[in-house]
Amino acid sequence: MSVCEKYFPEEPAGPHTASAVPGPQSQRAIQSLGQVFDSRPAYFVADYTRSVGNYIADVDGNLYLDVYAQIASIPLGYNNPALVAAAKSDRMVSAIVNRPALGNFPGSDTEHIIRDLLKVAPQGQDKMWSGLSGADANELAFKAAFMWYQLKRRGAGAAFSAHETASVMKNQAPGAPDLAILSFQRAFHGRLFASASATCSKPIHKMDLPAFNWPKAEFPAYKYPLEAHRDANSREDARCLAIVDTLLKSWNVPIAAVLVEPIQSEGGDNHASAAFFQGLRDLTLAHGALLIVDEVQTGVGATGKMWAHEHFDLEPKPDMVTFLKKFQSAGYYYHDPALTPAQPYRQFNTWCGDPARMILAGAIGHEIVEHDLAKQAARVGDYLYGKLAKMADKYPDYLADLRGKDRATFIAWTFKTPQLRDRFLADMKTVGINIGGCADDSVRLRPTLVFEEKHADVLVAGIEKVLLGY
Amino acid sequence: MSVCEKYFPEEPAGPHTASAVPGPQSQRAIQSLGQVFDSRPAYFVADYTRSVGNYIADVDGNLYLDVYAQIASIPLGYNNPALVAAAKSDRMVSAIVNRPALGNFPGSDTEHIIRDLLKVAPQGQDKMWSGLSGADANELAFKAAFMWYQLKRRGAGAAFSAHETASVMKNQAPGAPDLAILSFQRAFHGRLFASASATCSKPIHKMDLPAFNWPKAEFPAYKYPLEAHRDANSREDARCLAIVDTLLKSWNVPIAAVLVEPIQSEGGDNHASAAFFQGLRDLTLAHGALLIVDEVQTGVGATGKMWAHEHFDLEPKPDMVTFLKKFQSAGYYYHDPALTPAQPYRQFNTWCGDPARMILAGAIGHEIVEHDLAKQAARVGDYLYGKLAKMADKYPDYLADLRGKDRATFIAWTFKTPQLRDRFLADMKTVGINIGGCADDSVRLRPTLVFEEKHADVLVAGIEKVLLGY
Repeated sequence: MSVCEKYFPEEPAGPHTASAVPGPQSQRAIQSLGQVFDSRPAYFVADYTRSVGNYIADVDGNLYLDVYAQIASIPLGYNNPALVAAAKSDRMVSAIVNRPALGNFPGSDTEHIIRDLLKVAPQGQDKMWSGLSGADANELAFKAAFMWYQLKRRGAGAAFSAHETASVMKNQAPGAPDLAILSFQRAFHGRLFASASATCSKPIHKMDLPAFNWPKAEFPAYKYPLEAHRDANSREDARCLAIVDTLLKSWNVPIAAVLVEPIQSEGGDNHASAAFFQGLRDLTLAHGALLIVDEVQTGVGATGKMWAHEHFDLEPKPDMVTFLKKFQSAGYYYHDPALTPAQPYRQFNTWCGDPARMILAGAIGHEIVEHDLAKQAARVGDYLYGKLAKMADKYPDYLADLRGKDRATFIAWTFKTPQLRDRFLADMKTVGINIGGCADDSVRLRPTLVFEEKHADVLVAGIEKVLLGY
Repeated sequence: MSVCEKYFPEEPAGPHTASAVPGPQSQRAIQSLGQVFDSRPAYFVADYTRSVGNYIADVDGNLYLDVYAQIASIPLGYNNPALVAAAKSDRMVSAIVNRPALGNFPGSDTEHIIRDLLKVAPQGQDKMWSGLSGADANELAFKAAFMWYQLKRRGAGAAFSAHETASVMKNQAPGAPDLAILSFQRAFHGRLFASASATCSKPIHKMDLPAFNWPKAEFPAYKYPLEAHRDANSREDARCLAIVDTLLKSWNVPIAAVLVEPIQSEGGDNHASAAFFQGLRDLTLAHGALLIVDEVQTGVGATGKMWAHEHFDLEPKPDMVTFLKKFQSAGYYYHDPALTPAQPYRQFNTWCGDPARMILAGAIGHEIVEHDLAKQAARVGDYLYGKLAKMADKYPDYLADLRGKDRATFIAWTFKTPQLRDRFLADMKTVGINIGGCADDSVRLRPTLVFEEKHADVLVAGIEKVLLGY
């Protein structure tokens, strides 16, 4: 019996379509919700009580195979019984009703909760700080980076100067220093102000927001299939690393950290080689900047390893690794004690995370290890990639630049035009498959970790059915 | 039987002290936790399973009357049975394990959840947008304000220009415009980058963070007792409003919104009059800026009204009201449809809030209305204020500038020196009372909404006991 069958004996064999999408019930509910909440982005209204495993139900009786999974966020399928047990546990109930200010009044179970998250930490990381959203996780990491950078400049043990304490209250240097985070074109790191200043995937994400003047390097744009373009792609790595080197040397303000996704997800599932990432690691060391790896979307098993950057065997390990989505709990891992600010109450806020969501993350990590679900994702991903590669030969306009080989189910491909892509995303729902896009012209697969070969078959059949109509 | 007795028949009659604070068990646990998490700000390690109502237990067997309540965040007492029931409900379990991306895939219960929060919305507000932390709530409101401001400038229906879409990707104007939020000296609005740029209470909150060049007006500094200084305080209002007027007219970049706390909390429980706030409302209207009221700490009943700014009867109502803490769920209320961005996916992120925490907020709101707990807080606050006013005559060095008359239990006072204040905060724990400070020299009371006269008596006796030793 497969892991999925053990969790979900009642999971159906395939999708069920009962109405157009969105159906009449969904349309009514979206309109009504719109009176009090921005419901314009809603695709349909879900019935989560009837959703199960890899299948999401809507209020019109449709049941979709879900390979988007709440924007890459459902780790172990809908209504997973192991997570239901965690949600019903006494410690979860207490975390919900007695939400502690974890910094001032940690509970007797706080260390246990945190150590459960550390059990699945990236290689080399042994401490963490917790937050609430992906943007929050990244901005908390920025804070740690800027404090670390200024500590270096100020000298260990040095107190804040009177000039610093006075100027910071006016939002002026030196207390509020001109420092930057370097990120990449096509990167997505969140939509608050500092995180949006690091984001560079689409104008709509940040239009009209005041921004910090932070630089963007180019992220490699590879030619596919990779095997056929080794030399060109290697030159592309070198070209992009040279840009990073130049920016680190010559940007108009000092750069405290380089921030990068192991796979640029929102920006188009853009991959880069282990050599590129090791090159980044080397450049940050050479220039005295930190390396922050944003694993908000790539982390927690979906690429066949618990953390996607572990594919690169970086040495030394990244300085900080941010997380959320499939982990359901936000924050960053780190290992260097110098990244804990020298004074308390600097990396601090009322709650310092949400123990309820952290308890859930502990349960998610436990299940992934217990059932070796990252390895299973790798196996299923290989199976699915093989099928898609064959289809790609048949439908070159609809399945170009297939990406994600050896990255489990973290697979994407490109359409000839954004219009074709958008039509495909909509048509897939009509055959009972909920699937998502990235960039303007690509599709990204983000199934759960209990997505197995039989689900891959349903997905492939659905794609074939839609493409046959084109 | 009082509301508290109904909720907590087992609540003890007073605190119990069993060890020094922190006790040996707490000290060991704080040190151990410190290996993986910054535990330096921990006062003690709590045992939340043994905490009840207004009393928090620690792992050394101490039981404290808690008038700090997780930095003003526990609404209805520890292990409140009504909230335990909400936490055990099927819809809570589903919200925990099937966390939806509320924007793309709202659930069949999403509108119901949101309408429960709107039942206790501030007067005049009928829509909301949800976030995750207080800083997040404020920054989401900033985003809405900047998008609104640029829409006005661009003209309704106008598309983004090519110059805007190109420049925003480089973090440059006009796509990333130079716009500001005006806040006040001594204000606290959070510790992420934009929120920290609006915060101005202590250097430690924002030292070493790059900041936006946003202006700070002066917040009124009143003379106490208020009755004896009416004219001087009224002149202070006029002086501070004139500063706001000047900044709105002459700051080097346009100001999209004025952000203000109804009572500056972290910054010292600084109060201002209804006339001052109406003056602010008038100035924002005159200069085409929005008024954002930050009710993160003041909201949800603690001042004797559901929302503290309702004491001011502002007309027209504020444009946005941000919330969190006692509501356990973050976001902002608003009413003007023009504050919903003209395009979807602009005020958007993966989860758009946490329905689990929103379900809890709905239950909290329901209990407050059902038991009229804001009114009860007003009654108990009057009782407590009267007792403290008498003590203030006796201990002028330790109980100066008593603040919070007619603001229920939202009471604070000032010590002659920061050293005396710090000593008092520590000594209060030794008599079994957990109490918190604000600014450098003040104490703030932030009990739950089930804090009654008998608890006020325990608090007053504890204060008296400590002060007698000075």
